[in-house]
Amino acid sequence: MVLIDKLVVCGVGLIGGSFALALRHRKKVGRIVGIGRSKESLERARELGVIDEIAPDWASALDGADFVLLAMPVGQTDAAMEAMAPHLQAQTIVTDAGSTKRDVIAAAYLRLDAHLSRVVPAHPIAGTEKSGVEAASATLFRGKRTVLTPLPENDPAAVEQVRKAWQACGASVVDMAPQDHDRVFAAVSHLPHLLAFGLVHELAARANAELLFSHAASGFRDFTRIAASHPEMWRDICLANRQALLGELDQFLGELALIRSLLLSNNGPRLEQLFEEARQARTKWGEDRARERGEEKQEIVVVNGS
Amino acid sequence: MVLIDKLVVCGVGLIGGSFALALRHRKKVGRIVGIGRSKESLERARELGVIDEIAPDWASALDGADFVLLAMPVGQTDAAMEAMAPHLQAQTIVTDAGSTKRDVIAAAYLRLDAHLSRVVPAHPIAGTEKSGVEAASATLFRGKRTVLTPLPENDPAAVEQVRKAWQACGASVVDMAPQDHDRVFAAVSHLPHLLAFGLVHELAARANAELLFSHAASGFRDFTRIAASHPEMWRDICLANRQALLGELDQFLGELALIRSLLLSNNGPRLEQLFEEARQARTKWGEDRARERGEEKQEIVVVNGS
Repeated sequence: MVLIDKLVVCGVGLIGGSFALALRHRKKVGRIVGIGRSKESLERARELGVIDEIAPDWASALDGADFVLLAMPVGQTDAAMEAMAPHLQAQTIVTDAGSTKRDVIAAAYLRLDAHLSRVVPAHPIAGTEKSGVEAASATLFRGKRTVLTPLPENDPAAVEQVRKAWQACGASVVDMAPQDHDRVFAAVSHLPHLLAFGLVHELAARANAELLFSHAASGFRDFTRIAASHPEMWRDICLANRQALLGELDQFLGELALIRSLLLSNNGPRLEQLFEEARQARTKWGEDRARERGEEKQEIVVVNGS
Repeated sequence: MVLIDKLVVCGVGLIGGSFALALRHRKKVGRIVGIGRSKESLERARELGVIDEIAPDWASALDGADFVLLAMPVGQTDAAMEAMAPHLQAQTIVTDAGSTKRDVIAAAYLRLDAHLSRVVPAHPIAGTEKSGVEAASATLFRGKRTVLTPLPENDPAAVEQVRKAWQACGASVVDMAPQDHDRVFAAVSHLPHLLAFGLVHELAARANAELLFSHAASGFRDFTRIAASHPEMWRDICLANRQALLGELDQFLGELALIRSLLLSNNGPRLEQLFEEARQARTKWGEDRARERGEEKQEIVVVNGS
């Protein structure tokens, strides 16, 4: 059963492209229209069969549209919403895939205030260090989570439709308050990205960078994988969530001050205890996650089978 | 052709066990004797066929030994060398697998000064966040690197023998000065471990830790994998290499101060530039590494075929 007749994806990269491919793969979508900054990347998306056509402007994109996914870097949300607003039809559901939610919601209140019943902010917790439509995949969201941060103004039917679309992509959907979302992801996603970017940046600037990198092994590889992420996307996330991120950074600087003092004072027992506590928490997280993903996979099998 | 008639492994865990298994698999070793702190883990190593027998003491272990690998946490090196010294026979080569080299060398000068021609410090750049003999594997070192930091006193034949043993495990072997080794690995290995331990420790101590961890995804997974590493081993590494590690930590704190100021001043362009430079360096590193490992694999095929 088709869920969306006309889908508009703004920003057909890794996330937007994977959403389109997943819905098409599950036969949940009629026509997919792409819109965005880069003509070249839209052409590529059409060649790859990710979208059916390229909209020349928002008026044409939104004509008869059921569902719009905004999947460009969050810094462009405000301008996109402003450009959309005059052409938005009453039935159209608007959602997004931004990694921050308070800034997206602020833009919606400012630019789409007449349409708030159908603007449902969302964040799929998926992605890789790769970017661009070439990296898109119908299975990217399978077994992953999508967070919705519905607005008080939302029509429950619109929220349900967004939920169903992400579930059709294979994601499990949870709801959160926007401020909780932004704080949680500052801690478990935005700060780690900042640290990985920072470490690689700092090492790369040294005179002996080549020697250093030549001896880096699998620990470095995994620790810094996310330092190859999309710079503009992460600039936007860091600026949009800068308050929460600064809070996290300062808390982490406190932790580093503690570790530094343990090193300076040669405090083996407390250093080992700190490592042991981290190891236990990390090991438990890995086990919980494996269990949860096992359960989610079972649920997906049931959903697919039904 | 057997390379080592009687091999003694002190500390039969991930590294010591994998060395034993690799040499046995390639038929390069006659008898393998284990020694160490934990009777239980030695028994397990014997059950698993990683070692042939357990030595009750150093006198018995070293009787007729050709080759000793010290593979326990580096903090135990000095005591082990002290205990070995009275029983060491003229022919026996002593090497180690410690992640730090200056401390191991200092212990060798102090405890094995009569035997320096045959004490060859080494560091296999391999490992996982798992530890213990159950995690040992004959293929752990395949396509990896082992660094030797030979002493001026070394007999070239002893260095050659250690080199051949690691090559037989599938590793490519490079030589470095000990102080270079310790500085390089402080930057690309020890500091990342410290940061990963620190991040997980800090998050785990919060009141909302469960909520935070429940939303952590693949970026967090890879960034923190090494936070599940062996606490005692990493305590010893951090203390042994504390001078270089403090230098690296302070340099990284400088980088975080820069990033913090860019966030505070909302400096999007410089933040994006920093991320872009990191991305380029990390992408290039990944490509170089893939190429190098492809070449190493080819070499190993040739070595195996000869």
